[in-house]
Amino acid sequence: MQPLRVGLIGLGTVGSGVARVLTEHPERMTHRAGRVIDLVRVAVRDISKPREISLSADLLTDDPMAVAGDPNVDVVVELIGGQSPAKEVVVTALESGKDVVTANKALLCAEGAELFARARDLGRCIAFEAAIAGGIPVVHVLGQSLAGNQVTAIEAILNGTSNFILSEMLGRGESYGDAVRKAQALGYAEADPAMDVDGTDAAQKLCLLTQLAFGTRVTPEAFPLQGIDTLDLTDLQYADELGYAVKLLATAKLVDGQLEMHTQPTLIRHARPLAQVDGPYNMVALTGDAVGPTWLSGQGAGQMPTASAVLSDLIDVAIGRAHSTFSRLDLWDERPPIPVQPAEDIYRRYYLRFPVEDRPHVIADITAILGNHAISLASVIQHEAPELDDTTDTGTPIVPLVIMTHRTREGQIRDATAELNQLESIRQPWVCMPVSD
Amino acid sequence: MQPLRVGLIGLGTVGSGVARVLTEHPERMTHRAGRVIDLVRVAVRDISKPREISLSADLLTDDPMAVAGDPNVDVVVELIGGQSPAKEVVVTALESGKDVVTANKALLCAEGAELFARARDLGRCIAFEAAIAGGIPVVHVLGQSLAGNQVTAIEAILNGTSNFILSEMLGRGESYGDAVRKAQALGYAEADPAMDVDGTDAAQKLCLLTQLAFGTRVTPEAFPLQGIDTLDLTDLQYADELGYAVKLLATAKLVDGQLEMHTQPTLIRHARPLAQVDGPYNMVALTGDAVGPTWLSGQGAGQMPTASAVLSDLIDVAIGRAHSTFSRLDLWDERPPIPVQPAEDIYRRYYLRFPVEDRPHVIADITAILGNHAISLASVIQHEAPELDDTTDTGTPIVPLVIMTHRTREGQIRDATAELNQLESIRQPWVCMPVSD
Repeated sequence: MQPLRVGLIGLGTVGSGVARVLTEHPERMTHRAGRVIDLVRVAVRDISKPREISLSADLLTDDPMAVAGDPNVDVVVELIGGQSPAKEVVVTALESGKDVVTANKALLCAEGAELFARARDLGRCIAFEAAIAGGIPVVHVLGQSLAGNQVTAIEAILNGTSNFILSEMLGRGESYGDAVRKAQALGYAEADPAMDVDGTDAAQKLCLLTQLAFGTRVTPEAFPLQGIDTLDLTDLQYADELGYAVKLLATAKLVDGQLEMHTQPTLIRHARPLAQVDGPYNMVALTGDAVGPTWLSGQGAGQMPTASAVLSDLIDVAIGRAHSTFSRLDLWDERPPIPVQPAEDIYRRYYLRFPVEDRPHVIADITAILGNHAISLASVIQHEAPELDDTTDTGTPIVPLVIMTHRTREGQIRDATAELNQLESIRQPWVCMPVSD
Repeated sequence: MQPLRVGLIGLGTVGSGVARVLTEHPERMTHRAGRVIDLVRVAVRDISKPREISLSADLLTDDPMAVAGDPNVDVVVELIGGQSPAKEVVVTALESGKDVVTANKALLCAEGAELFARARDLGRCIAFEAAIAGGIPVVHVLGQSLAGNQVTAIEAILNGTSNFILSEMLGRGESYGDAVRKAQALGYAEADPAMDVDGTDAAQKLCLLTQLAFGTRVTPEAFPLQGIDTLDLTDLQYADELGYAVKLLATAKLVDGQLEMHTQPTLIRHARPLAQVDGPYNMVALTGDAVGPTWLSGQGAGQMPTASAVLSDLIDVAIGRAHSTFSRLDLWDERPPIPVQPAEDIYRRYYLRFPVEDRPHVIADITAILGNHAISLASVIQHEAPELDDTTDTGTPIVPLVIMTHRTREGQIRDATAELNQLESIRQPWVCMPVSD
């Protein structure tokens, strides 16, 4: 059988990992793919730069479009990230008759509909296991292993950087800022970690999972999205005391014919597997109507876990399996989309923490407002003033009032919020986090 | 495209689940498979028996071989279990030009080599996702998602019955016998649970996983195998106190070019994901040289989880993906097998509990024997006589002496055992369980 000729675009962390396995373990790849997988062309930003793996100089070019259009390349691996020139690279590769393997979730989230349709029209395929939770084969599992199921719920920890920061904060009693600096020092966070910690990265991955599981196109603007960048260690500690971990949880589940979706810091009971994922790991919990609950976990990012996903896609392309899988994924608009539930209708429990003045009537005022909006309380905790240094200008101590609600509509919480913000006895900001049951 | 015509052999629990989805959700199956999946023939043991799903009478036969050889059937789903007539059914189906989907781990463990080779020679395929940990897509993951990796370790909880019993014993302080009866009442254990609780079932599944991950054929006779049927609640409680859960753990890992393999009740630190799997769930922890550690968990048995796996295999057959996957699995003897490490060379820590007479020299005698065999001790715990009712004939109390060793070769443990069994101060049986680090 003819070799599969690979053009690699982007020789950063992941690209170097892919190139390393292809060049160091050719016999393994041939055995698994049934044909030679040959790295024939590599586009880099700067040819003269020293790099961690040595590749023959005649493989290298600094022109990604030259690789995308190279007639001697069968499949293009796009690992440059971002939307431009990645989109042009992918389109050119498809139009030149090549299949595409990509790890670019931002591109697929924004332009996936167009790119997938283009690939389909041209009889090519796009494989993207590496775009979502690298070391966790969730694209394979949703697209193949659970194909006999109607998936009913996805709950996932999809950003390893955020999860590492949360684990460090609670585990070591560190502030958010200190934990971020540690994540950067260990290579778990970029110099600018904004997309990781503000929830964008997790929300983009959730959109791709939602498309695969429910056949519905969604963008992050369509649902509540919040990162961990405004979290306070105090709330992780109160949650822990109450029996919950706080995780950046991405959720999409079928509720009465609609999709309940959100990506937010969320309280999860300690006993649940999602609460037990610590450090830079990811977990995807999938529920199907036949299979019931299942959990997949592993490293969601990093050089070799992501390279592993790219390599499995390359083998799938080599075998022809990527084509048959791509043709059956729920990436087209064959069926009516499932509407996303309006945020105000989301029905769940909430954790509330109010820094309040320690004086008469405060608890009564707050609980009266909640009661007026039919928000029923499961527990109310006011410890004896632990923040003794914290007082109003007039010397009244500020104490935390922690409330867990029963299930309530997000709309009721929003209405109550407007009134709560009028209370002078509450010091801003007060905290509201959802609970996953 | 032509429908895929399915002949189902065995309409027990799982078979009924498969038939139910095929008949209740035909549009889903067609959408996922790209063609109609049509249940055209069903072999049952007793045609007149009332059953949980209603099927047209002309679909039914009581002759499995008639289905296996039916020219109007494209794929046979074998769900009768056991080795005969299952083997004849599979061979006949293959020889009649049909693909086979099976959940029969006992058959594949015993006869897989012959059946796989036969299928390959005939240009057919055997799909068996349902044979190992039903709701966990480990065959897909090993065969496809991790294909770019050299798998280096498998550690797995593969028997939900045993795991349920262990969880009940520790969680409720129940005896082994009481927990078994509860498992039976809840449908988690058969009337005769021998194959589940004696470790055979888990060991057979481990053999299949070992073949897939390492390309090496092994049978359960080749490695240490022990079930949970001799476990004592006391040891689960001591392990818990020491910070460990006891699980029926099936292990295959690469150690210096050999495969360390065993299936035994094993101590696992509480913080590890494998220790946190409670109730009738399974977990497979896979480590690959690229992907690092990954974990898959879900229901390993039961009607619909196993049916889910059968359905995904049927969709794979319908798409043609099952053929391409089967052709690349490590099921043939293309590469030299990796030898199984001799049991006496297995190198790990051990938990030991000796019921001993509470009198001078006993600890010295035992630790001297261990020391003579170069077994180094990590911790020694002797509580004040908790088993006060327990005495020798002469009234000396019997107390438990619990020892955790450092890593040692199993051969040293065996040699020491012979000498320990000579000590009159040790009451039989004393307990030795390995620890997974």
